[in-house]
Amino acid sequence: MKIAMLGAGFIARFYATALHSQRRKDRIHLVYSRTQQTAEQFARDYQLSHGTDDMEAAINHPDTEVVVIALPNHLHAKAVELAARAGKHVLCTKPLGRTAKEAKFMLDCVEKAGVFAGYLEDLCYTPKMLKSIEAVSNGAIGKVLWTKSREAHPGPHSDWFWNKELSGGGAIIDLACHCVEIGRNLIGKTIRPVEVMCWSDTQVHPIDAEDHAIGLVKYANGAISQFEVSWTFRGGMDLRDEVMGTEGSIWLNSFLRTGFEMYVAGNKQGYVAEKAEQHAGWLFPVGDEAHELGYPHMFSDMFDAIEENRAPMETFYDGYVVNAILDAAFLSAQSKRWEPVLLDDWRGEEATATDKASNSYNEQYDLVKKEILPNGVTKLILKDKKSGIIIQKEIPANS
Amino acid sequence: MKIAMLGAGFIARFYATALHSQRRKDRIHLVYSRTQQTAEQFARDYQLSHGTDDMEAAINHPDTEVVVIALPNHLHAKAVELAARAGKHVLCTKPLGRTAKEAKFMLDCVEKAGVFAGYLEDLCYTPKMLKSIEAVSNGAIGKVLWTKSREAHPGPHSDWFWNKELSGGGAIIDLACHCVEIGRNLIGKTIRPVEVMCWSDTQVHPIDAEDHAIGLVKYANGAISQFEVSWTFRGGMDLRDEVMGTEGSIWLNSFLRTGFEMYVAGNKQGYVAEKAEQHAGWLFPVGDEAHELGYPHMFSDMFDAIEENRAPMETFYDGYVVNAILDAAFLSAQSKRWEPVLLDDWRGEEATATDKASNSYNEQYDLVKKEILPNGVTKLILKDKKSGIIIQKEIPANS
Amino acid sequence: MKIAMLGAGFIARFYATALHSQRRKDRIHLVYSRTQQTAEQFARDYQLSHGTDDMEAAINHPDTEVVVIALPNHLHAKAVELAARAGKHVLCTKPLGRTAKEAKFMLDCVEKAGVFAGYLEDLCYTPKMLKSIEAVSNGAIGKVLWTKSREAHPGPHSDWFWNKELSGGGAIIDLACHCVEIGRNLIGKTIRPVEVMCWSDTQVHPIDAEDHAIGLVKYANGAISQFEVSWTFRGGMDLRDEVMGTEGSIWLNSFLRTGFEMYVAGNKQGYVAEKAEQHAGWLFPVGDEAHELGYPHMFSDMFDAIEENRAPMETFYDGYVVNAILDAAFLSAQSKRWEPVLLDDWRGEEATATDKASNSYNEQYDLVKKEILPNGVTKLILKDKKSGIIIQKEIPANS
Amino acid sequence: MKIAMLGAGFIARFYATALHSQRRKDRIHLVYSRTQQTAEQFARDYQLSHGTDDMEAAINHPDTEVVVIALPNHLHAKAVELAARAGKHVLCTKPLGRTAKEAKFMLDCVEKAGVFAGYLEDLCYTPKMLKSIEAVSNGAIGKVLWTKSREAHPGPHSDWFWNKELSGGGAIIDLACHCVEIGRNLIGKTIRPVEVMCWSDTQVHPIDAEDHAIGLVKYANGAISQFEVSWTFRGGMDLRDEVMGTEGSIWLNSFLRTGFEMYVAGNKQGYVAEKAEQHAGWLFPVGDEAHELGYPHMFSDMFDAIEENRAPMETFYDGYVVNAILDAAFLSAQSKRWEPVLLDDWRGEEATATDKASNSYNEQYDLVKKEILPNGVTKLILKDKKSGIIIQKEIPANS
Repeated sequence: MKIAMLGAGFIARFYATALHSQRRKDRIHLVYSRTQQTAEQFARDYQLSHGTDDMEAAINHPDTEVVVIALPNHLHAKAVELAARAGKHVLCTKPLGRTAKEAKFMLDCVEKAGVFAGYLEDLCYTPKMLKSIEAVSNGAIGKVLWTKSREAHPGPHSDWFWNKELSGGGAIIDLACHCVEIGRNLIGKTIRPVEVMCWSDTQVHPIDAEDHAIGLVKYANGAISQFEVSWTFRGGMDLRDEVMGTEGSIWLNSFLRTGFEMYVAGNKQGYVAEKAEQHAGWLFPVGDEAHELGYPHMFSDMFDAIEENRAPMETFYDGYVVNAILDAAFLSAQSKRWEPVLLDDWRGEEATATDKASNSYNEQYDLVKKEILPNGVTKLILKDKKSGIIIQKEIPANS
Repeated sequence: MKIAMLGAGFIARFYATALHSQRRKDRIHLVYSRTQQTAEQFARDYQLSHGTDDMEAAINHPDTEVVVIALPNHLHAKAVELAARAGKHVLCTKPLGRTAKEAKFMLDCVEKAGVFAGYLEDLCYTPKMLKSIEAVSNGAIGKVLWTKSREAHPGPHSDWFWNKELSGGGAIIDLACHCVEIGRNLIGKTIRPVEVMCWSDTQVHPIDAEDHAIGLVKYANGAISQFEVSWTFRGGMDLRDEVMGTEGSIWLNSFLRTGFEMYVAGNKQGYVAEKAEQHAGWLFPVGDEAHELGYPHMFSDMFDAIEENRAPMETFYDGYVVNAILDAAFLSAQSKRWEPVLLDDWRGEEATATDKASNSYNEQYDLVKKEILPNGVTKLILKDKKSGIIIQKEIPANS
Repeated sequence: MKIAMLGAGFIARFYATALHSQRRKDRIHLVYSRTQQTAEQFARDYQLSHGTDDMEAAINHPDTEVVVIALPNHLHAKAVELAARAGKHVLCTKPLGRTAKEAKFMLDCVEKAGVFAGYLEDLCYTPKMLKSIEAVSNGAIGKVLWTKSREAHPGPHSDWFWNKELSGGGAIIDLACHCVEIGRNLIGKTIRPVEVMCWSDTQVHPIDAEDHAIGLVKYANGAISQFEVSWTFRGGMDLRDEVMGTEGSIWLNSFLRTGFEMYVAGNKQGYVAEKAEQHAGWLFPVGDEAHELGYPHMFSDMFDAIEENRAPMETFYDGYVVNAILDAAFLSAQSKRWEPVLLDDWRGEEATATDKASNSYNEQYDLVKKEILPNGVTKLILKDKKSGIIIQKEIPANS
Repeated sequence: MKIAMLGAGFIARFYATALHSQRRKDRIHLVYSRTQQTAEQFARDYQLSHGTDDMEAAINHPDTEVVVIALPNHLHAKAVELAARAGKHVLCTKPLGRTAKEAKFMLDCVEKAGVFAGYLEDLCYTPKMLKSIEAVSNGAIGKVLWTKSREAHPGPHSDWFWNKELSGGGAIIDLACHCVEIGRNLIGKTIRPVEVMCWSDTQVHPIDAEDHAIGLVKYANGAISQFEVSWTFRGGMDLRDEVMGTEGSIWLNSFLRTGFEMYVAGNKQGYVAEKAEQHAGWLFPVGDEAHELGYPHMFSDMFDAIEENRAPMETFYDGYVVNAILDAAFLSAQSKRWEPVLLDDWRGEEATATDKASNSYNEQYDLVKKEILPNGVTKLILKDKKSGIIIQKEIPANS
């Protein structure tokens, strides 16, 4: 398919490199940038037909089949509106909006226009995450009780990120959007996010927005989804996820510990990893960064979905839900209490029972815990169903 | 020194094994248990002079120099009171009390009696933690911004833990006491803990107390200390700590990944680790569990402190502060808002400035971020001191 | 490009899945298998135009542009001969031949016919290995002194592997071909492999071929390349590489520890990894196996090379050198001494000095070692250039 | 017990610190050093009664019960001879001798004198290794097929190590002594080491001895024990062990990856690990180095053994066997072929069958491999007992 790339900065280059590698058949044919010079440089680097500083022209170009939005956050809405009006398929980088209201506007645009719309939430598409989501949905670790997603690094590359008006916030809007959607994928997208508790602070940088935040999102089925985001981390890019289920656990490390360790005594080494601070000592490069970050699988799903006339894994609706959760997080950081997630447009399950497994051991007792001791004895902790009294009981090894 | 061991259960055995190994010179001479039979069995196993079911007699025995309390939580206060009255040195297992009020009573007992009192907070004494605390206090990672301590396993061994009245709570009282004190050691014990936000739930077990909780403790200097505790974790005993500082980071794993990995195809393997659920597949044993959990270093500090007439690293006062923080956590889990830490007896710094480093770049700008790009160019994100406008600037490689 | 796939077994399926994924533009159009039924099943599964049991017809089909050989080892030579005769581009799986003689025949076939020939040595194309080779060739770790490549698992899937006549050997021919070529890429392909020492044994399986072997390949510049291969490993698929250089080290783990850890209490989990033995306990899945094993990057290089009219990274000549080294390994395992690598056709550097760095410290001494002690003192170990006497010398911290 | 420490260098200090910590009851009472000044400094640092430069006086001092030899290799024999003559218990650091002949002399000295003699082979006493040896001897991983022990760092601290006459060799005598004895403990000390193949080279340092070596030791039961030793490693101290058994595997990492990871941006950090080269970037400290290296457990075993009138785990006889294996390694590095291990005094099993497990599947076939495919089908590779022909067979999931 023929793509118009909107934006020519860091993320646009990451997208373009992924799209044009590995003998993929989809091609960017033109690029829009706010400055003509940057557009032309980008066009040369990726061998495009041309670059332009006219966004509308780029979108409306007759060869443009798909519009990829890789612009600063405050320009997403405008770009989506234009693409929808032009009837072009549109893929938008994360976060969808700066607020749920803005995201809802974009959602309405594409739904009214009937165009395909994909939410470029790459970290839900990493090969590790895809396999984890599949394992979880197959029941490999039982019911999900808690998810934790952590994204931390020393701060973003471009000026606009650090400007709260343009970006919509600090580390929360930049990074927690990933964490929140990872949590939704693992807990189940049909389960309603109910309320959010969030702490945030500006601990290091001379900015108005938060550079560190921790939040908890509570779901209707009792599951908790935690995010840890920071622009103050020292040591590289820290991307880790964890899941606790009733029957198992998952630990992912997508950047700093992926089975690649290099010690460099001197200072001869070049570019190692997107956000590594260091070029000597023990380094932890990533074999193929774009792949580890999910770009190839994300774009494959998007283009396949267009051709197969189906929804992609990540939609504008998902982007809207994420923004609603982040809205609650920002509020909670101010109010210092749990804040409800306001979703005017909820498309999942209405009520979800917080179904606990039955723990009945026999007529008299519930089973609190069962453990096999080193000597083979089985130790039971039991609770009397009526009196609530808790006892322990040992069953010999050979009985 | 001659020790009276109070308690003959799981933790008493762990203590006794550590005390009587590695040619240490201190000896347990008698043991108290609530049942005579258990006391006698323990005495035989550790070659003690005798066992008794009379607590007061054990404490008052003329040979007893030091009393080690390894009893269920609801019996700590009584044992401390008796030991103080007898003028014996006393070491008490964690948590000190079930509440700050109970801990304060014990603190008062020992201080009025003028006896030595040590708080057996083993996880602050692990060799990894001792070295981390030393590195942090030497400034190796700058100012501490955040600590995270995680303790999770499938639940405790004995019945009384599961009874809220006897233990004082669930996973919070059992496990978060460790996490909170680890945070204090890393952030600085003189820094006042100000308020706590906590989520807790009973997600899996048929009990009244919480089996999963996450909390944030905010300190007067702006640092945040996070605890993650659970009795629902599947996969062994998860003991991990993390620290983020302005100049560095620390990651510790004290049980599941310590450089010992064993794959066992069959089912022939014996006891592997305190709380491992599994005996085949990939196992992660710990070389010397007592050592990894801090027992040898803890007891060495305690007995050395007695001989050197100094305070140990962990005192009853520390135990009291921990209980005060946990009190606030329990309250916050109910009220769903941040709750103040109530400390009638605060002995640290009264006011702590949330001193941020100066970020001044030159007369006009503050430095938001400095980054060296792969091509050698230095990229600066700067904020105008007056207007607050954020710009970016690139400095060529050879300038 | 249009591909004829020769073979429909395990490796052919792995290749086909990689080729037809991620929106790649090259397509398999037909498949050859020794049995018509298998060919047809494969054709259905990958939506090919048809399957056939006539190898020559598959190769000569007018639409066939590239022939991919995914056949048992004893059929490589015949397939290459037919493809060369037909003037088709040919890509052959590893090992190229069962012996250097057979490999040389294939090399001659394609060179005489003037067709493009690529050696499908996937493990040299893993993203981690590509980045390592680049770092090494940029001098990041100085001169390479030693490489170690380890490939071990519980044994191959298909019957013919276990038959020494058909495969050419056991674990050495199956696995050491990878290790040897990894070593060549890291040490430098122009450096001549000189001699080989190898131990092998049949420790577990009731077969004639070796199921475990360790070998050392010595290069003309003094570097040593070690292989460790086994069909007896318990615990999954063990793919690890290490490099020691004068200025640094590299450690790679491509399968069992890639930042993906999952604990599964029960038995509900499906297919986890190519050669995992286990479906419960701690599992270490790989996010995207084909990617981690190098298939996408390998095929991209091959097809790009055809279009760009250049040699691929891995050529039939490389396959021939590998076979010559393996020939020497088999001989050494018998003779129990170092055996020379016989290369009639050597295209690299003729003589390579074993250039050591100068260690001169001053006129009198060579520097043996320099170390900064914890107290800041610099400790030197020096060797008198004339007498050879070794002394130590300490230089205070502030001098 | 009262100890005379012979030597006051790096290893003597490491020993003394371990002996005098953790409230251990044994005490060093005096120290011998070749220079009086060093002896006195050491005595002050460890609060000993005195230091002396008279070795015989130190040994013969009436208070001396145990002599600990922490001297350069060329002085071991003399010190052992004097201690034996004085009828004192003697503990000698590794390697026992520079050659088997020298070790045999020492063995004869102590056996004739009837004194207790312990071989201070610390790396066999690390908590991880003790637990591994126990697991292996309990059959947890079946029959041991292969062990690998790796010791590599940038080279030793003191001048005499680098002098082949004084030390007896280079990296082999310094480091392979550990590896070889680790292999013996895992394979079984009663199994006879038969022959050795070794490669060595002086790749980096301007010395006569080898600074890098790799060796294979073959045992009478077919097991292989590999050592990898180097004084050229960059990145810290690399201590890793691996074991492959018929029923499982073990991987140990005793220094660089023990669950302690610290990132330090600046240069403020002090002493981190015995042989770390670096003080910024990602560092991997060890919590308690002496413990991780086995000193406390080693000395406990030694003194307990004296009191219990039993042999310690590591004896002078073990040291002698190790030297005999190293003798063969040095020879093999010269002769470039397998060299027999010459043991005049062999006290283990005379003949050991290389007993392979029976692989009989039924009357007609031996079982080569059994595998459960992802679809539940069981795949068998079978070998006809008479014809030797190998076939494969699939058994459906529900049969």
